[in-house]
Amino acid sequence: MTKKRQLKLGVMLHGAGGHMASWRHPNATIDASVNFKFYKQLLEKAEAAKLDLAFVADGLYIHEKSLPHFLNRFEPLTILSALAAVSSKIGLVGTLSTSYSEPFTVARQFASLDILSDGRAGWNAVTSPLEGSALNYGKGEHPAHGERYLIATEFLEVTKGLWDSWEDDAFIRNRETGVFFEPEKMHRLHHKGKYFSVDGPLNISRSKQGQPVIFQAGSSEPGKDLAAREADAVFTAHESIEQAVEFYRDVKARAMANGRSPDEILIFPGISPIIGKTDEEAYQKYLEIANLISIDDALNYLERYFDHFDFRQYSLDEPFPELGDIGKNSFQSTTDRIKEMAKQEHLTLREVALRVTSPKTSFIGTPEKIADLIQTWFEAGAADGFMLSGPVLPDGLTDFVEHVLPILQKRGLFRTEYESDTLRGNLGLKIPRNRYERDEVINNA
Amino acid sequence: MTKKRQLKLGVMLHGAGGHMASWRHPNATIDASVNFKFYKQLLEKAEAAKLDLAFVADGLYIHEKSLPHFLNRFEPLTILSALAAVSSKIGLVGTLSTSYSEPFTVARQFASLDILSDGRAGWNAVTSPLEGSALNYGKGEHPAHGERYLIATEFLEVTKGLWDSWEDDAFIRNRETGVFFEPEKMHRLHHKGKYFSVDGPLNISRSKQGQPVIFQAGSSEPGKDLAAREADAVFTAHESIEQAVEFYRDVKARAMANGRSPDEILIFPGISPIIGKTDEEAYQKYLEIANLISIDDALNYLERYFDHFDFRQYSLDEPFPELGDIGKNSFQSTTDRIKEMAKQEHLTLREVALRVTSPKTSFIGTPEKIADLIQTWFEAGAADGFMLSGPVLPDGLTDFVEHVLPILQKRGLFRTEYESDTLRGNLGLKIPRNRYERDEVINNA
Repeated sequence: MTKKRQLKLGVMLHGAGGHMASWRHPNATIDASVNFKFYKQLLEKAEAAKLDLAFVADGLYIHEKSLPHFLNRFEPLTILSALAAVSSKIGLVGTLSTSYSEPFTVARQFASLDILSDGRAGWNAVTSPLEGSALNYGKGEHPAHGERYLIATEFLEVTKGLWDSWEDDAFIRNRETGVFFEPEKMHRLHHKGKYFSVDGPLNISRSKQGQPVIFQAGSSEPGKDLAAREADAVFTAHESIEQAVEFYRDVKARAMANGRSPDEILIFPGISPIIGKTDEEAYQKYLEIANLISIDDALNYLERYFDHFDFRQYSLDEPFPELGDIGKNSFQSTTDRIKEMAKQEHLTLREVALRVTSPKTSFIGTPEKIADLIQTWFEAGAADGFMLSGPVLPDGLTDFVEHVLPILQKRGLFRTEYESDTLRGNLGLKIPRNRYERDEVINNA
Repeated sequence: MTKKRQLKLGVMLHGAGGHMASWRHPNATIDASVNFKFYKQLLEKAEAAKLDLAFVADGLYIHEKSLPHFLNRFEPLTILSALAAVSSKIGLVGTLSTSYSEPFTVARQFASLDILSDGRAGWNAVTSPLEGSALNYGKGEHPAHGERYLIATEFLEVTKGLWDSWEDDAFIRNRETGVFFEPEKMHRLHHKGKYFSVDGPLNISRSKQGQPVIFQAGSSEPGKDLAAREADAVFTAHESIEQAVEFYRDVKARAMANGRSPDEILIFPGISPIIGKTDEEAYQKYLEIANLISIDDALNYLERYFDHFDFRQYSLDEPFPELGDIGKNSFQSTTDRIKEMAKQEHLTLREVALRVTSPKTSFIGTPEKIADLIQTWFEAGAADGFMLSGPVLPDGLTDFVEHVLPILQKRGLFRTEYESDTLRGNLGLKIPRNRYERDEVINNA
């Protein structure tokens, strides 16, 4: 009997929770976004539940109206490295921008995290949607959307190349002869491209999982193309199962067009389950969270997607304004979706703002109902797994782990023990072969 | 009775040890430079001994002839963040280059480490002596020595400015009113300088110690000037107590000329004690380490200081060659010292190479002798403390902690308990006032 296809599950670690007013919830830890003990406890809970990974997102620009959680939070590589020291199986994935970093530094820091954690690192490579980022990095202008993806493509090529600087058996360390490494197994990249010029070699070797796992989160056309070529996994967000299935098929087809197997790229829609003993109790929890937001906060949240465009010039109860290209150069796929939703459903500005800030509505109910929805999405080809974004933490994770996970396990959809102690191993992804490795080495292995 | 002036002590964490052939020593952990458990055990030993800090150095360019430890090692911010999670009192200091980094990222990562560790972070700001670094960062040329220090000065100004983005009481987090922070206590830097243009604010607040402690390690004229203006502490290296006293007076005088108290800048010469029950046993240990090196390794080591200049064109047993300006744009103060030493003592190339690679000779002997030397240097005004660089680890640290430290403690020169749980607190450095804080706030405090 072959084993049933298994769900993959990750959890977002984002301070008090994934909702903009999470911190106001009575069960929230109010300084969660800069509280290491809180992060550590969440991670321990996620690891005890055998989740595949924990994920820390990022941004490079804040503003008076930014989400509270964004104003004051840990930087991903530092918090993930700290968490590596207090865990042993769960994957550790962080966002880092390809638009405002140097490939040599990024390659080193993720490789170092990968060795610290003994093969559990993942990098969510983003192009930085926020225009303001340019102001913190001395750049005249934020690169346009299309160009950001060209930069990202070259950045990933360079980083992956640097990660292969040393073949896995390069370090001999022979005390007797004094030979520390085999020079022919050290490789210089000598990359000279449009955006980067990097010689190498990197001053750190590969980990047990070969290279960190690459995540990608853009859902625009260039985003999907980049993912299809370079990513091992994709974070995404969909309002309906139909949209999710379409996205899933689209990305897998693009990967196949690039000569890859569809199993080499995993799709993780984000969900924010709100769980109650009854559907009614879950709905009450939903309302409790939704009601933490003022319309003023909701407008701030909406404006952030549109690069801080001023929506206060419009009347709240008139139809959502016609925006033309506004938002195209920031969160392109999200702003397109908001515009489309407003148009299709004839929503006012107030309705759009509250809709956008409310927790995602489709995963609310009893544990059985949430498990059913997850199974349905999974079996319909909408997802290989899910990123759990608890609207309020730790409750969002605790409720899921205690009540939904046992049902998924009983149905044979989720593990009860880790299969591996690397992130690639648990995700079922192959160890990438070192590009410089010779065939005879492989044959001997 | 006032308490005696107290020694400060740090330890370098550098893989198998501070000697280029440490890894060949029978007591060395052969893969130490990428072995997290080894780093963790060393740190635990240092913290149990109440040392002030552990220090991780760095470099951005390797070469076939680089020291074995440099070829494959942890990146400082990631390893220090991991170590923060498994310690609670000891300071965590890492090197990061101002020539190949962005101030916004550096400010964030050190601030994040500072909060993760609850006020124990330190940054050794270096200008990257290795010319090859430019090849890994797409720069046409490595900036000249003087320009690197201009960049470093502006970089430190920007970083310190970003660290003050949020006043310490800016985050109110009032659940009832929904007010997360006081907007007038968030500050944008709006820096526009010759090398950097950074708006801010930083997306992380100050830690319990205010700002990470700034270390500086350049001993050239611009290096000492930068330290005198911006650094809280200086790492240095001297062959003799006379040179050390001269350096100490020079840096303290420069600090005073900048309107600072001499107590605001601590001087840490590096020492590599080799300890035996008798002087003879210590000398035998010294020989055992020195003999791990071949002349070929010694030339590689020497060449690195001179930016990989080819010394093999000269005869080993002729006088050390006349080099003119070679080495001026890499490790300037070190190469000047080597040239001067060769000239004064009429050394051959072979003698210079073996001298440079041998463990520092002045701190060899019984525990009493080492303690005497430390006390002499300390009381002569040559040092506020020392950076211990064990030639072979963990022995170098264990021997010191078990045999020398109790003597220093008995003499009242070193603590038996931490005075504080922040790095500034233990070093006796003040918490820097936030530049934006108003006087009335201070008076109320």
